[in-house]
Amino acid sequence: MAEPRNPLFEQTVRDSFAAQQLMATIGARLVSVTAGEIEIRVPFRRDLTQQHGFLHAGVVTSVLDSACGYSALSLMDEGVGVLTVEFKTNLLAPARGEELIARGRVLRAGRTIAVWQAEAAMLADGVESSVAIMIATIMTVRNRPDVVG
Amino acid sequence: MAEPRNPLFEQTVRDSFAAQQLMATIGARLVSVTAGEIEIRVPFRRDLTQQHGFLHAGVVTSVLDSACGYSALSLMDEGVGVLTVEFKTNLLAPARGEELIARGRVLRAGRTIAVWQAEAAMLADGVESSVAIMIATIMTVRNRPDVVG
Amino acid sequence: MAEPRNPLFEQTVRDSFAAQQLMATIGARLVSVTAGEIEIRVPFRRDLTQQHGFLHAGVVTSVLDSACGYSALSLMDEGVGVLTVEFKTNLLAPARGEELIARGRVLRAGRTIAVWQAEAAMLADGVESSVAIMIATIMTVRNRPDVVG
Amino acid sequence: MAEPRNPLFEQTVRDSFAAQQLMATIGARLVSVTAGEIEIRVPFRRDLTQQHGFLHAGVVTSVLDSACGYSALSLMDEGVGVLTVEFKTNLLAPARGEELIARGRVLRAGRTIAVWQAEAAMLADGVESSVAIMIATIMTVRNRPDVVG
Repeated sequence: MAEPRNPLFEQTVRDSFAAQQLMATIGARLVSVTAGEIEIRVPFRRDLTQQHGFLHAGVVTSVLDSACGYSALSLMDEGVGVLTVEFKTNLLAPARGEELIARGRVLRAGRTIAVWQAEAAMLADGVESSVAIMIATIMTVRNRPDVVG
Repeated sequence: MAEPRNPLFEQTVRDSFAAQQLMATIGARLVSVTAGEIEIRVPFRRDLTQQHGFLHAGVVTSVLDSACGYSALSLMDEGVGVLTVEFKTNLLAPARGEELIARGRVLRAGRTIAVWQAEAAMLADGVESSVAIMIATIMTVRNRPDVVG
Repeated sequence: MAEPRNPLFEQTVRDSFAAQQLMATIGARLVSVTAGEIEIRVPFRRDLTQQHGFLHAGVVTSVLDSACGYSALSLMDEGVGVLTVEFKTNLLAPARGEELIARGRVLRAGRTIAVWQAEAAMLADGVESSVAIMIATIMTVRNRPDVVG
Repeated sequence: MAEPRNPLFEQTVRDSFAAQQLMATIGARLVSVTAGEIEIRVPFRRDLTQQHGFLHAGVVTSVLDSACGYSALSLMDEGVGVLTVEFKTNLLAPARGEELIARGRVLRAGRTIAVWQAEAAMLADGVESSVAIMIATIMTVRNRPDVVG
């Protein structure tokens, strides 16, 4: 675990996640929050699929984006906001199985710009298989009351 | 309009879009289908937002991915399938407004690999503003009955 | 042509380009500099090739990166520096021909973060063909005397 | 070490690297070749720099691209060719120091499409610091005598 700068980081992350209404819409749960490491899970649902019956790449990306953003936020100062500048997703395999699991890890945390990597796996019959990887560039936003968390 | 190789391209695209259950879940409509050009729209809904009240980047990406994929499929042979290999999204501005509009255009259409670009805009008070851009690499899949459309 | 904020933008760009020693090493010339639009050309040379005899993707990328960076710098305030945060290159066709031509255009110019797109073409027998496209995220750096231009 | 399918993989990689004339031009050496793992090094040279005196992002990318491509080629069948479809580079820190070191590792190796990650570090005073990361999509090309290696 990295050293958090915001002693309330877990609450900050949980509050912000709860405010992301899309996460509730797709059934995403914030499973664990430690400093610099977040795990999000989404049970498979038919109403989240693409045309071949796998989870849609957009759902996988939504969860990877949140995993990157909240891993980043967990290491930031209190009161700042986090904005995603860009991300790239490589889809490694069809997202089939019972549950999507996304986890993030930092590649570089600068004062303004942070680079995060997240991996998504599908759990099927108790076995995790990697289905996607994301690299994201995230910006810390200071002194913007409309962009906090 | 480019020259389609599949005379039934519009029906192929519409059937596949209808099979993407995520599109119904987020309220996405396939507004127009011409050969090589697709337009998808999603009315703003609170249950699709991120923590600051804008449309979640994952929703924007879901629609951009579908715009790229179906623009690509509209130019392909009958009976093939389309798989997204990877995409990159740059978020240019917060996605606030009444409706998200995504449109794709081809950069290169090879036999196996196609590169597509899609732009997303938000319509607010009758004015469109660009909010994101995607570059996607799409693979044509042949002779795989489980991956058609 | 966009409105430049630095009246000496052309000289600023030309001085910085001249300081990029790699550009001389690969024979790159800064052909034109207007506000927001830069053109760089590199004549084909055997010592810049990959294993199949085409220009190496790294050469194409070097020039696209400089095209994005200097297009961005041409619109910035005097005395700032420009740093590339990340870029993505899609290679659309083998880079064969007599001369590589790279041109940039802005997608979004924010105060801290700018997003640029550049396209590379090869000139062969008087005809230009697109060989690569880049999307780059560029950061403006202020008050860093070691990072100016 | 992964299981190679081409018993002559090391010679195949070394021959192809030797044919990449850009590598000689920038002073790159192929330091080690095992199945699925390649290391390339480039001593710092002033004629490879950008305007602030660091190695140019294009040089870093050239070496990362070759590291990804040859790591991929080392696991492929004899007689095939390898083409880079796209890559994304995140620049994590200025490339200053005595020597650039690039190493690749596979994320997914499919029959047609492989996804590779490579990291670049600078060696300075005996210490390696990460300066860039690349994710690359690489295509295997079969039955094209002009694209072998």
